[in-house]
Amino acid sequence: MSAQRSTGPALRLGIAGLGTVGIGVVKIVQRHADLLAARTGRKVEITAVCARDRNKNRDADLSGYAWESDAVDLAKREDIDVFVELMGGHEGVAKDATEAALASGKDVVTANKSLLAHHGQALAEMAESLGRVIRFEAAVAGGIPCIKALTESMAGNQIRRVMGVMNGTCNYILTRMEDAGLPYATVFEEARQLGYLEADPNLDVGGIDAGHKLSLLASIAFGTKVAFHDVQLEGIGRISIDDIRRAGDMGYKIKLLGVAQMTGRGLEQRMTPCLVPATSPLGQLSGGTNMVVVEGDSVGQIVLRGAGAGEGPTASAVMGDVADIARGLRLSTFGIPASQLTEATAAVATAPASYYLRINLSDKPGALAKVAQALGNAGISISRMRQYGHADSAAPVLIVTHKTTSDAIEHAIATFPQTGVVQGDPVALRIEDL
Amino acid sequence: MSAQRSTGPALRLGIAGLGTVGIGVVKIVQRHADLLAARTGRKVEITAVCARDRNKNRDADLSGYAWESDAVDLAKREDIDVFVELMGGHEGVAKDATEAALASGKDVVTANKSLLAHHGQALAEMAESLGRVIRFEAAVAGGIPCIKALTESMAGNQIRRVMGVMNGTCNYILTRMEDAGLPYATVFEEARQLGYLEADPNLDVGGIDAGHKLSLLASIAFGTKVAFHDVQLEGIGRISIDDIRRAGDMGYKIKLLGVAQMTGRGLEQRMTPCLVPATSPLGQLSGGTNMVVVEGDSVGQIVLRGAGAGEGPTASAVMGDVADIARGLRLSTFGIPASQLTEATAAVATAPASYYLRINLSDKPGALAKVAQALGNAGISISRMRQYGHADSAAPVLIVTHKTTSDAIEHAIATFPQTGVVQGDPVALRIEDL
Repeated sequence: MSAQRSTGPALRLGIAGLGTVGIGVVKIVQRHADLLAARTGRKVEITAVCARDRNKNRDADLSGYAWESDAVDLAKREDIDVFVELMGGHEGVAKDATEAALASGKDVVTANKSLLAHHGQALAEMAESLGRVIRFEAAVAGGIPCIKALTESMAGNQIRRVMGVMNGTCNYILTRMEDAGLPYATVFEEARQLGYLEADPNLDVGGIDAGHKLSLLASIAFGTKVAFHDVQLEGIGRISIDDIRRAGDMGYKIKLLGVAQMTGRGLEQRMTPCLVPATSPLGQLSGGTNMVVVEGDSVGQIVLRGAGAGEGPTASAVMGDVADIARGLRLSTFGIPASQLTEATAAVATAPASYYLRINLSDKPGALAKVAQALGNAGISISRMRQYGHADSAAPVLIVTHKTTSDAIEHAIATFPQTGVVQGDPVALRIEDL
Repeated sequence: MSAQRSTGPALRLGIAGLGTVGIGVVKIVQRHADLLAARTGRKVEITAVCARDRNKNRDADLSGYAWESDAVDLAKREDIDVFVELMGGHEGVAKDATEAALASGKDVVTANKSLLAHHGQALAEMAESLGRVIRFEAAVAGGIPCIKALTESMAGNQIRRVMGVMNGTCNYILTRMEDAGLPYATVFEEARQLGYLEADPNLDVGGIDAGHKLSLLASIAFGTKVAFHDVQLEGIGRISIDDIRRAGDMGYKIKLLGVAQMTGRGLEQRMTPCLVPATSPLGQLSGGTNMVVVEGDSVGQIVLRGAGAGEGPTASAVMGDVADIARGLRLSTFGIPASQLTEATAAVATAPASYYLRINLSDKPGALAKVAQALGNAGISISRMRQYGHADSAAPVLIVTHKTTSDAIEHAIATFPQTGVVQGDPVALRIEDL
């Protein structure tokens, strides 16, 4: 008798979607057949595959696999054990095929953050009522093992906060703006031409894709039903090169940062541009790399860093899930049974924080005093302030506040027009404590 | 039917060793009983405990648990399912009790790196022949989930290299030397007074403790039998504040860095002071924090950072393993069955690298040329060189070489006396590529 089933039957995969990640999975199964068998105690095989266009030239030999033109048909095949969903999209065939797979007794491994962000609870309930598992390490931060760390390694912790830079394209754009001194629009166009952007770029730069990921992490961290629609979303479109430079002068970097934490008023989920200390691990993250930071009451802060996208890293995460299934690990989709996940009250940025404010002041005597007074009236005190030299009639002023609330900041900004000295819209960005 | 056994029997722990970590485990089990039950589908209970001194004042209520004065007796109790070994030491009672636990049908969770570094293969074989598991996340880098990441998340990867800063005390000493400009001996004494050092300080500063950890990671990464005695060990005792400063001038930090990689000549395992780029994640690591870096052929580089020691982090890692057992995850000790682990040939630093050399040169005409010639004769070319101003008769010279081998460096150093211009022993430190 061995702890590991060394004579288990082969684990048979059906792969739906043969884009970059799907082909990456095929390559790993082919290249590392022996390694996978040694590690899981079973052969891992591909039985059948499916994609939109059979005749497309692909960088892998698919001749040994049955071909299905319809993912639902693939999902129902009797000769597969695991349905690997790599098509994407939260409606249509991805959803239909996932449901068909579960209904016909298959486990599911998916990289589809959008599907789970929208239908995670229903799918988890379905899977668990049928005794199947859904695994989705590849859906969040690519190759970084954050789902596993949170669900398994930190099982003895009450989670305090989960944070992450989980959209490589946004981090690339912000890093490139800073390094090359280029405005957002120019770098956005570069990224589009490099093929870094989704067909709908708002999924990236609007924070939606990263918001999907955050909502999945939050569910596991806090035992709550996935609540993507409660994520406070703000993209990077209004970040100027000025703000990146000014924040840098004050010792910060600007990141599209996801933060989920349970507060006295409910579950706070934010995916917004934030300032983080330049010397922190998040501040030092540049280019397309992702980072997930998890804080537990016993373990303290764990930082996980790696490639958030791409063929190899995402396929590696898929195969980690496949190996778990081959080894017999059977977990609830979001770490606890779906029936025990609670409905969280959504709270909007109630946790106090310092804020960065950039205000264009009219060049009039007493202007700064008027703004300071408006902040004081809103109960906000100033930690640091800088006024920059200027050639025209407006003086850029930077303020870092002491800890306050987003309500207070909004209130103060709403009173700025009454001062008669604030030009244009002030920029207010939260400074996340690390 | 549910994917998770929600009505499973309680999982009963016997805890041997009630030091910091043992008490940390007790506290988590008591504080998070509901959380653990929800996450694992079973109650997690402590049945019995054992420590040297029953009357010691401990920061936890142990009145509900049976007391054993002998760990072997605890291990054999019929009312425990998991033997949690937190005593330490690689001979004597820790080994006897672990064997007794396995022999009497218990799974084992341990934080004992030394035990596994010395007897890992025998214990793994014993566990697997009896159908039991041994888990040891807490033995390597405290709260950082590096064993799980390597064994499970990266199961689809051929591992290329594993690196880590895994002794917080050494990293604290090096960081403190740099920040305070203090010599090694002074900071060593500070660390001793702060209680940061093991009873035998050489376990820390000699790299032995970190070497134990590296040997366990290497076994999992490369499917080889644990070979602690093949780890090339060098402590931090000869690192001077001068070297820390000079390396800093050249853009590097000095770390006690563990590196394991499979080369054409065999398995290279080193735990030695190395230079790493100051801007890399390893270079940015300061104080007692640990970091493990794993590189796989698909996933690329994954960086894991967190607390490497202490009550909470280590107890968190123990509980992650306990939760896995409660959830029914049963893995081979080192990722593949013990019978399939291979005996690796030990290779000593065969992978080429750049080196940092600090040489005290006599203040004579042509001295630098003679050293450059000696390096050239050994096939070593110079990438960068700095000579510092000096008040006495010896001029400190720093050299960063192009990639070469440790053999070539040793050969060159052996010829330095013949030049007649090198004073004292040169310092040579490997620069690890990141």
